[in-house]
Amino acid sequence: MTAEEVRAVLAWARERRVPVTPRGAGTGMTGGALAVRGGVVLSTERMTRVVEIDEEDLVAVVEPGVVLGDLQAMVEERGLFYPPDPASLTSCSVGGNVAENAGGPRAFKYGVTREYVLGLDVVLMGGETMSVGRRTSKGVTGYDVTALLVGSEGTLGVATSITLKLVPKPPAVAAMLALLPSLAVAGEAVTAVLRLGQRPRCLELMDRASIDHVRPRAPFKIPERTAAAVMIEIDGDAEALDAALERCAQACERAGATEVLVARDEKQRRDLWATRRGISPALKEAHRVKIAEDVVVPRGKISALLARVDTIAAASRLEVATFGHAGDGNLHVNFLDDGRYSPPGRVESAVAELFRATLELGGTLSGEHGIGIAKARYLAWEQSGELIALQRKLKQALDPDHLLNPGKIFA
Amino acid sequence: MTAEEVRAVLAWARERRVPVTPRGAGTGMTGGALAVRGGVVLSTERMTRVVEIDEEDLVAVVEPGVVLGDLQAMVEERGLFYPPDPASLTSCSVGGNVAENAGGPRAFKYGVTREYVLGLDVVLMGGETMSVGRRTSKGVTGYDVTALLVGSEGTLGVATSITLKLVPKPPAVAAMLALLPSLAVAGEAVTAVLRLGQRPRCLELMDRASIDHVRPRAPFKIPERTAAAVMIEIDGDAEALDAALERCAQACERAGATEVLVARDEKQRRDLWATRRGISPALKEAHRVKIAEDVVVPRGKISALLARVDTIAAASRLEVATFGHAGDGNLHVNFLDDGRYSPPGRVESAVAELFRATLELGGTLSGEHGIGIAKARYLAWEQSGELIALQRKLKQALDPDHLLNPGKIFA
Repeated sequence: MTAEEVRAVLAWARERRVPVTPRGAGTGMTGGALAVRGGVVLSTERMTRVVEIDEEDLVAVVEPGVVLGDLQAMVEERGLFYPPDPASLTSCSVGGNVAENAGGPRAFKYGVTREYVLGLDVVLMGGETMSVGRRTSKGVTGYDVTALLVGSEGTLGVATSITLKLVPKPPAVAAMLALLPSLAVAGEAVTAVLRLGQRPRCLELMDRASIDHVRPRAPFKIPERTAAAVMIEIDGDAEALDAALERCAQACERAGATEVLVARDEKQRRDLWATRRGISPALKEAHRVKIAEDVVVPRGKISALLARVDTIAAASRLEVATFGHAGDGNLHVNFLDDGRYSPPGRVESAVAELFRATLELGGTLSGEHGIGIAKARYLAWEQSGELIALQRKLKQALDPDHLLNPGKIFA
Repeated sequence: MTAEEVRAVLAWARERRVPVTPRGAGTGMTGGALAVRGGVVLSTERMTRVVEIDEEDLVAVVEPGVVLGDLQAMVEERGLFYPPDPASLTSCSVGGNVAENAGGPRAFKYGVTREYVLGLDVVLMGGETMSVGRRTSKGVTGYDVTALLVGSEGTLGVATSITLKLVPKPPAVAAMLALLPSLAVAGEAVTAVLRLGQRPRCLELMDRASIDHVRPRAPFKIPERTAAAVMIEIDGDAEALDAALERCAQACERAGATEVLVARDEKQRRDLWATRRGISPALKEAHRVKIAEDVVVPRGKISALLARVDTIAAASRLEVATFGHAGDGNLHVNFLDDGRYSPPGRVESAVAELFRATLELGGTLSGEHGIGIAKARYLAWEQSGELIALQRKLKQALDPDHLLNPGKIFA
């Protein structure tokens, strides 16, 4: 697939009123790449060229099919850094990241994909082609069309070239895991760390169920009967890291941590990440049904949400495992079920309860997975009729026949 | 003025087809708040309520008329930090910052206003009112309407409440000034610092003319015959700052710096900033005409742009003073003239030449001042007809009668 072929497909499809569903690597969590209305699936999988990595400008230009992890390895070899790090980084594509505005643990310090997309070459439904945005790190010329396209889940246009901002690679990185007697204490530990004026690059939470599921396969050993853990990763100048880590550890201990395990070298740090990243696959292997939600609450409401999750789990008699990006208030709540004996709709109503609790606490339905088809029916729970109507007008302006990725976001 | 009054004005104006020009503190640089088509000027100057500062959520909610510097003082008292720092911070309003997507020196490390606006209450032309965005630090529910509104220069809606993301206040900050034998060496010093993997929060450039103008009033003494200077400010953990500053100083010296002056205490650091911020007023006092431009080039093209500025100045026989945010490639090029004996149009053609050079080097017309009326006629130099048409469609979707801030951005 080339940019010219994307143009040709979208021109042909508009003329014949054929729906088109853009697809990156297919790793999305909300069904955005599924052709629910039939028609053509337009895959950018083979558009894998890294056009340039400019060390002076701190810019990379890539085609949408480039795998995120490959790009990160290439820029890090040159002493540069591309922060967004969704869990699927070894297989997801940069184009998909742009469509979904992907995040990941490092978003806490570095922000999400939107903060790194400087410009796009984009093809609209009908084949119109244009460059939006810029190559410079700043710029306020005209409306921020780039930001409108990022996170639009393939419903407004298809990016054929992506200009990304890079940053200098941090000189050093260190990580630790604080073990906590309860989830409530975990919430307090997170708050205590933030009050230090510290900005860890990651501030991750895992609950007992997450830890218990991953323990048998975890390269980083977490003691039995650990009720909750907070993982902290700090980057910066080498001479500052020990003291910063020490301050974080002390804050966690004052909040009630029973033990703090420091990753003593790069191997242990990688083991810690392999353990954190192993939670989701471990949950999946152990249960026939695993519905991973992606809600976000204001930071001060993390403990309240965790309490609500407990209540929902008890009432629905479902097992729940929660982990995620505590620093951002972005929690992946996983409802688990063996699916054999449960009454139908049990998981669905637990999810609905979770959304209700999240919105009551001032939160949002999705931190980084998007809306797609999975959450489209809940959009109106969060957003007013006026705001949804406004977004439909924007969609109408770019794709008046509703042919590009139809059936997504708006139910 | 209240949100309800804003609604009433915009409803009334739409019904009677009266143009409305929103106005913050009136400190803008491109004429965005001027009622060029007559009608009503809607001032948010008295909407000065700081509704809340939430230390747990790291969020502030403010009305648009709050003065930026006041907000910064309030959050810093609580150990929090709101980074955007345009030069007008003691008088500009947060609503104006949102309309223009304001930047400032600290944007190099911390990003611009867009990165801190989580949500808005907004009134559209006609009086329709809605909340867009969220209170959480992350969120991908629906299109990023918030980002579309930020930087839209008051042409799409009027914000009546602004929800801002705060970050922990950095524990310590330190600054230095490297004196350089030429602007070319300044470019090399900037590149050398970036290659360290260091992320200073500010990386500012000043040329000889800027230094010579500000010297008589500068509280921080810069030696005579200094051809150029690079100012570096670093924040972070106290124990890391000395070593980091030392590394930056060494990098500048290797690049050719003749001297490095370190701000030894908080007073000296403030003096250094007063000196940097004094450049623009000093230029204004000394010349009847001072046209301050705001171009951005990719970082690797800073030296090339500075050379082009020299050529333009010589050809137009105008004095030029250049300073600005070198880390972002965002330079304020000031064309100076006493305006008495110059042929008409001399400054205008120099500005046009600057824009031509900027675009040839892959840059953009505006880094933080916006387009307004001042640059509207040049928009088509940078953006394609297709992209401008797309933006007009977005405008059409929100303000079909073109009554809100007419005559801005699009010529």
